[in-house]
Amino acid sequence: MKLEIKQNILLEHLNYVIRGISNKNIIPVLNCIKFELDETGLYLMSTDNEIAIKTFIDKDDIENIDKCGTIVVSGRFIYDIVKKLPNEIITIEEVVDNKIFITTTNSSFNLNCNNPEEFPVLDLGNHKSPICIPKRVFKNIIKQVAFATSTQESRPVLTGLNFKIEGTRLECTGTDSYRLAKTSIEIETSVEETINIIIPTKNLNELIKMFSDEDGNIELHIFNNKVIFKFNTIIMLSRLINGTYPDTSKLIPTEFMLAMKVDMNHFYNSIDRASLLTNEADKNTIKLESNNNSIVVSSNIPEIGYVEEKLSVQKNNQEEIKIAFSSKYMIDALRALESQEVELLFNGEVKPIIIRNPENENLIQLILPIRTY
Amino acid sequence: MKLEIKQNILLEHLNYVIRGISNKNIIPVLNCIKFELDETGLYLMSTDNEIAIKTFIDKDDIENIDKCGTIVVSGRFIYDIVKKLPNEIITIEEVVDNKIFITTTNSSFNLNCNNPEEFPVLDLGNHKSPICIPKRVFKNIIKQVAFATSTQESRPVLTGLNFKIEGTRLECTGTDSYRLAKTSIEIETSVEETINIIIPTKNLNELIKMFSDEDGNIELHIFNNKVIFKFNTIIMLSRLINGTYPDTSKLIPTEFMLAMKVDMNHFYNSIDRASLLTNEADKNTIKLESNNNSIVVSSNIPEIGYVEEKLSVQKNNQEEIKIAFSSKYMIDALRALESQEVELLFNGEVKPIIIRNPENENLIQLILPIRTY
Repeated sequence: MKLEIKQNILLEHLNYVIRGISNKNIIPVLNCIKFELDETGLYLMSTDNEIAIKTFIDKDDIENIDKCGTIVVSGRFIYDIVKKLPNEIITIEEVVDNKIFITTTNSSFNLNCNNPEEFPVLDLGNHKSPICIPKRVFKNIIKQVAFATSTQESRPVLTGLNFKIEGTRLECTGTDSYRLAKTSIEIETSVEETINIIIPTKNLNELIKMFSDEDGNIELHIFNNKVIFKFNTIIMLSRLINGTYPDTSKLIPTEFMLAMKVDMNHFYNSIDRASLLTNEADKNTIKLESNNNSIVVSSNIPEIGYVEEKLSVQKNNQEEIKIAFSSKYMIDALRALESQEVELLFNGEVKPIIIRNPENENLIQLILPIRTY
Repeated sequence: MKLEIKQNILLEHLNYVIRGISNKNIIPVLNCIKFELDETGLYLMSTDNEIAIKTFIDKDDIENIDKCGTIVVSGRFIYDIVKKLPNEIITIEEVVDNKIFITTTNSSFNLNCNNPEEFPVLDLGNHKSPICIPKRVFKNIIKQVAFATSTQESRPVLTGLNFKIEGTRLECTGTDSYRLAKTSIEIETSVEETINIIIPTKNLNELIKMFSDEDGNIELHIFNNKVIFKFNTIIMLSRLINGTYPDTSKLIPTEFMLAMKVDMNHFYNSIDRASLLTNEADKNTIKLESNNNSIVVSSNIPEIGYVEEKLSVQKNNQEEIKIAFSSKYMIDALRALESQEVELLFNGEVKPIIIRNPENENLIQLILPIRTY
C-alpha cells in the first residue's frame, strides 16, 4: 500500500473511526484501524466488537494512490501522529510486510502493523428497506431521551433506548425505572412489520457526536441482532440489546387532576438553587407545594439549613398539590425540553409527574414522586 | 449582623476567599468563611491553616449596612448559593445567634452558622519594609519557574519556590532535582539583609489565579515563618517551608562546549511528535543528535515503532552533540520560555542542558540528560 494524502483530510476521517476503538480491549487487533486502499479511494475501519465504524475517502480527495493494499495499524498511535503532523501532504507506505512509513518533509515515523487477516470481517450491507430520518431530527430525539436511561448493567435492557416503529410512527423511549423520557415522530415511509428494538444508549451518543453538520438524512438499516447507521461517508454498526423492553404505554396517564404552567427559567433556577440543600443519600429530594396561583419549592439538610423558593404559576383548576421528587431528575427533564414555558401535570402525591413543553406534546418527561408527606 | 449587597459584588469577593478553604478539612470552622461587618465595610476571610485569604468590600459598594456584627458560615454553601442567586440585591441577616437568612425577592435560605469565636485569629499586619513588585512581573516569575518544582512530599523543600533577595536582585528558583528553572529580576528598593525563603508552590499558583488584572503592584511582607501578600483589596497569608534550599548556583555552567539556536515552533513540534513514541516507564526518553547544521530528534518504543525528526540549526562552532533527555521536561521548559527562538547549550552528553530565550538571559531552564549512549 502506498498513498499521499493531505493531513487535514486524513485527520477528519480518523476522528470518526477512532470512536470505534475501546482502549480497554485486550485483543490487539481491536485497538487497530484498518486502512483499505483501492482505485476508488481509502476505506478506514475500526471495531471493538460492540460497534464498528467505517468511513470512506474518495480518490478525488487523495493526492496520489501509488499502490493499493490493506494495513491494520494501532488506532491510538496513528491518530495521535496524524493529529500532531503539520497540515502538509503525508505519505503512508508499506515498506515490508506489516511495517509502514509515515512521512512528511521533516518527520518520519516507522510503525509496526498487525496482520490484516486477523481483523474481524463484518457485514455492513444494506437492508432492503432502510428507515430514513433527517439528521437534525434524529439528534434531537437522542438528546431528548438518552439521559433517562440507566447506566447500571444489572438490567441491560434499561441501558438502551427503545425504538418502536409502527406504520409511519416512530416512538423512542428511555427509562431507568425511576424516570422516563419518550418522544415520537412521523417518518416518511411506512414500515410493513412493527419494529421493536433496543439500541445501547452509549453507542447512540457516540453516533450523534460524529454529525459534523445537521443537513441531510441518516439511514437506519435494522436487522435481527444489529442496526447499521449510514450518513455522509460514514457507516456505523451497533449491536442490539437482547430482551423485552418494559411496556411503558400504560405508565403515562392521559387525564390529570391538576395542570400548571410556569416560566421555564424561573422554575429551572428555583429547582437548581433548592438542589443546593439536598444530598444524594437522600435522593436529592425537594418538595413542591401549591397555594392558589403560587408554588413553593423547598428543601433542607437538617445540619446545614433550609431553602424556600416562591414562584407564580397558572393552574387549570382550584386543586392543590403537595409532592416531593428528585431535583436531579427534574433538572435533567427540564434541560431536555428546551422550551420557554413548562407544563407540570399531576394526579396526586404518589402518582407520576409529567413534565411537558406545552407546544410539543410529542415529548413527554415523567418522574416518579418520592413519598415524604 | 444585617446588610444588603448586590449579588455580583459579593460573588466577586467570595471567589477570592473560597480559595482559602480546603474541602478535606475535618475541622468544621476551617471550611467556613468569616463575615465581619463594621461601619467601614465587609471583611471576608478564610483559612485552612496553610493559607489565609482576606478581602474587603468598601461600604460604598454595599447597599445598606443595617447592623454590624460577625458570622462564620460554611464556605462551600454560601458560595454556591450566592453563585446561583440572580443578580439582585441580597439581604443577609443574622436572625438568632448563629443562624442567618439569605434572601432575594423569591428565594429565602436559612443557614446554620458556626461560633465566630472558634475561627482562628491570625496576624495579617504589615512588615516595616515590604517588597513591591509589579503584578505582571510577579505572575510571569511564577509561570516561568513553578512547573519545575516537585509534587512529592518526600523532600518538602522541593515542593516550594526559593525566593532569594540580595540588595535589589530577586532570584526565584524551582527544581525537582531532575530539572531546574530560575529567573531573576531587579526590584526597586534594596533590602538590608539577605532574604532566603521557600514558599509552597501550590499557594503561589492559587495566588496568581486571584489576579483579576495585571495592573499595579503586589506587596510581599516577609516574616520568619510566613509571607503575607497584599494587592487590591486582597490579603493572602502563606506559611513558609522550613529547611535549607539546595545551593543551585554551582549547577548552572557559564561556559559551554556548544551552543545552537533553533526555531521554537519547529523544535517544540518535533519534540512533541517524538514524545508520542516514548513512555513514562522509560522516562519519556528522546535522543538528539547534531550533524553539521541539522539535528535529528528520535525516539522509539520497540514493539510499536520509531520516529525521526529533522531540523536545521545555527551552531556557534563545529562541535557535535549526541544526548538523550526527557521529552516531558523539554516540553515544559520550552513552554515557559514563550520565545520565537530557543538557544540550547551543551557541555557533553552527561552534563546538564541549558535552554534559554536568546533575548532574555535572566531566565534559565536546565534539564539533566539521561545516559543511554
